[in-house]
Amino acid sequence: MNAIINDIEVIKTKSSKISEVDFSNLKFGNTFSDHMLVCDYKNGKWQAPKVVPYQPISLDPSAKIFHYGQSVFEGMKAYKDANENVWLFRPLDNFKRLNISSKRLAIPELPENYFMDGLKTLLQVDSNWIPKDEGSSLYIRPFVFASGNGFHASPADEYKFIIATAPSGAYFSGKVRVLIEQKYSRSANGGVGFAKAGGNYAGQFYPTQLAVEKGYQQVIWTDDNTHEYIEEAGAMNIFVRINDTLITGPTSDRILDGITRKSIIQLAESEGIPVEVRKLSVHEVVAAAKDGSLKEMFGAGTAAVISPIAGFGYKDEDYDLPELEDTYAAHLKKRITDIQTNKTDDPFGWRYEVKS
Amino acid sequence: MNAIINDIEVIKTKSSKISEVDFSNLKFGNTFSDHMLVCDYKNGKWQAPKVVPYQPISLDPSAKIFHYGQSVFEGMKAYKDANENVWLFRPLDNFKRLNISSKRLAIPELPENYFMDGLKTLLQVDSNWIPKDEGSSLYIRPFVFASGNGFHASPADEYKFIIATAPSGAYFSGKVRVLIEQKYSRSANGGVGFAKAGGNYAGQFYPTQLAVEKGYQQVIWTDDNTHEYIEEAGAMNIFVRINDTLITGPTSDRILDGITRKSIIQLAESEGIPVEVRKLSVHEVVAAAKDGSLKEMFGAGTAAVISPIAGFGYKDEDYDLPELEDTYAAHLKKRITDIQTNKTDDPFGWRYEVKS
Ligand SMILES: Cc1ncc(COP(=O)(O)O)c(C=O)c1O
Ligand SMILES: Cc1ncc(COP(=O)(O)O)c(C=O)c1O
Repeated sequence: MNAIINDIEVIKTKSSKISEVDFSNLKFGNTFSDHMLVCDYKNGKWQAPKVVPYQPISLDPSAKIFHYGQSVFEGMKAYKDANENVWLFRPLDNFKRLNISSKRLAIPELPENYFMDGLKTLLQVDSNWIPKDEGSSLYIRPFVFASGNGFHASPADEYKFIIATAPSGAYFSGKVRVLIEQKYSRSANGGVGFAKAGGNYAGQFYPTQLAVEKGYQQVIWTDDNTHEYIEEAGAMNIFVRINDTLITGPTSDRILDGITRKSIIQLAESEGIPVEVRKLSVHEVVAAAKDGSLKEMFGAGTAAVISPIAGFGYKDEDYDLPELEDTYAAHLKKRITDIQTNKTDDPFGWRYEVKS
Repeated sequence: MNAIINDIEVIKTKSSKISEVDFSNLKFGNTFSDHMLVCDYKNGKWQAPKVVPYQPISLDPSAKIFHYGQSVFEGMKAYKDANENVWLFRPLDNFKRLNISSKRLAIPELPENYFMDGLKTLLQVDSNWIPKDEGSSLYIRPFVFASGNGFHASPADEYKFIIATAPSGAYFSGKVRVLIEQKYSRSANGGVGFAKAGGNYAGQFYPTQLAVEKGYQQVIWTDDNTHEYIEEAGAMNIFVRINDTLITGPTSDRILDGITRKSIIQLAESEGIPVEVRKLSVHEVVAAAKDGSLKEMFGAGTAAVISPIAGFGYKDEDYDLPELEDTYAAHLKKRITDIQTNKTDDPFGWRYEVKS
């Protein structure tokens, strides 16, 4: 069953699982496509990637991923348009960010062609797995982790780069309520917050559980030093609309440079929406909520696209956002998803076609 | 080959690897004993642990350990005395700390008997693997990681707790030179620095590589906000001797509460050495280095025990420590290892015998 596609070896599964999948009822990220891309780093270099059947990974108990959290990942989506053409959104930005993350985690950087050709080949092989329904897409998870062995706390000598995909529905259902965190933090100055490093996520689970127990769905992280400035959410950057101005914090070494965030900024600016990228204090947001100038808050990220926020908690007080008719969130979400799914033209050159 | 020891099921290996091991020439943590303890969390509870042959672990590519760094670990040592009796050092403190770490990482806490009886049984089964030579010991690595599946950034529903062991020699050979970090950081206020979470270690690799390129072996972390206060090293807490006073920083949510550290404090106090647990600024250490009152610096941790520091770099200047005849480091190291290896009495009740 071996083939070579785009110079990449492809070993196809003998039994597809696709007939078991209910594409009209997809959850997020828990149904996996038939194949995955695998690429090993050993003897000082990345070896040629292969497409193989989706299958378990076998590791020594001393593999460093289990002990030292040496891993990075990306999140992307593939969309199918009405003509069955397949599209990615700014994939080179994900590739570059993966390498930025890898560098900070002392993981060897990947060659661009292994990532891009590997991804294209995988999508060609599993193109049947890309959902067509509105609101659904093929969630793509490239990740790199330390597979080399040993209990010495130092970088591994072997790594695995894998791309796995999951046909997925929405990440959140409906609006979310968020808690502006005043005790726990996501990242340190000089730390790894700007990297999509595995450990950044595990550290958020417990504070998020505490927030969920209080009736919120997400935590809004603030700076670890003063807790006065709004940083980002678990897997989304944060936008606030005060009067008609859209405000988002600047990126830094504590904050992920989100691709959705920067696309939203560009889209909004191109439509004449006033956008400010500047430090945003909790104080300002609370004051705006109190005087009625706070019109909207929303998260922006690949998984959730744009996720409107219904209200927030801060120091034991709850603040509700107004129910507006025409929101920036809804408008910008439509703009960006229309571009992503090839329903409109693409003035910024963000779309990337995966030709078969 | 199945047996029940201490209520724990034991499946012995059919072919021991012990004859391949050169016990007089052990490195740190890269030779693994014949067996391991495995315990699975599923259906909402920890299942009974088992001792099984050391063997690869098979995981779905979506297992959360690969993506979200949800893992914690411990580091302990077992020693064999002249009469072949087997000793641990304060093992309950490791157990408690593992659960403290787990809680912060949203990992279900382990029952004490699974940890302690599992550990004892494993050491009984692999007692031949515990080195007898001075300076060698059986390094013990308990760890817990998210084995449950899915790309949703939320805690896993399944975990594995494993104890693996490795007969080991010294962690460092000789004195180390350290760099007092002024740019990168290890942990945030309100973060996971006090937990032995995998992600804390991966984040240190790159800054440590940069330090190594400059001729240092280790980084001394400072607080992420001002970089003015000395926190700890990669896997060691830090002590400084100014004149005759031993000083170490207080623990906090950014710093691991080291078992070696607290033992050293108690030992030193019991011998009348003046000990101060207080914030220690880089400024004070540099001033003491300049005026000659800085006598010693050393790291303290299970793997390295006590690791004397020969000198440090700070803002492009290098500072050498004096070569003293009688050091606190050497004296305290002998005191603690004599207690650990049952060469002397144990006034604090730290030793714990593993009876066979
Ligand atoms: C911490 C964090 N912030 C923000 C984002 C949004 O980034 P992007 O828009 O590139 O998906 C993500 C998810 O990718 C994230 O994990
Ligand atoms: C970050 C860190 N600090 C300090 C220590 C020392 O702790 P202990 O003495 O309990 O081994 C360790 C190693 O265990 C560590 O990983």
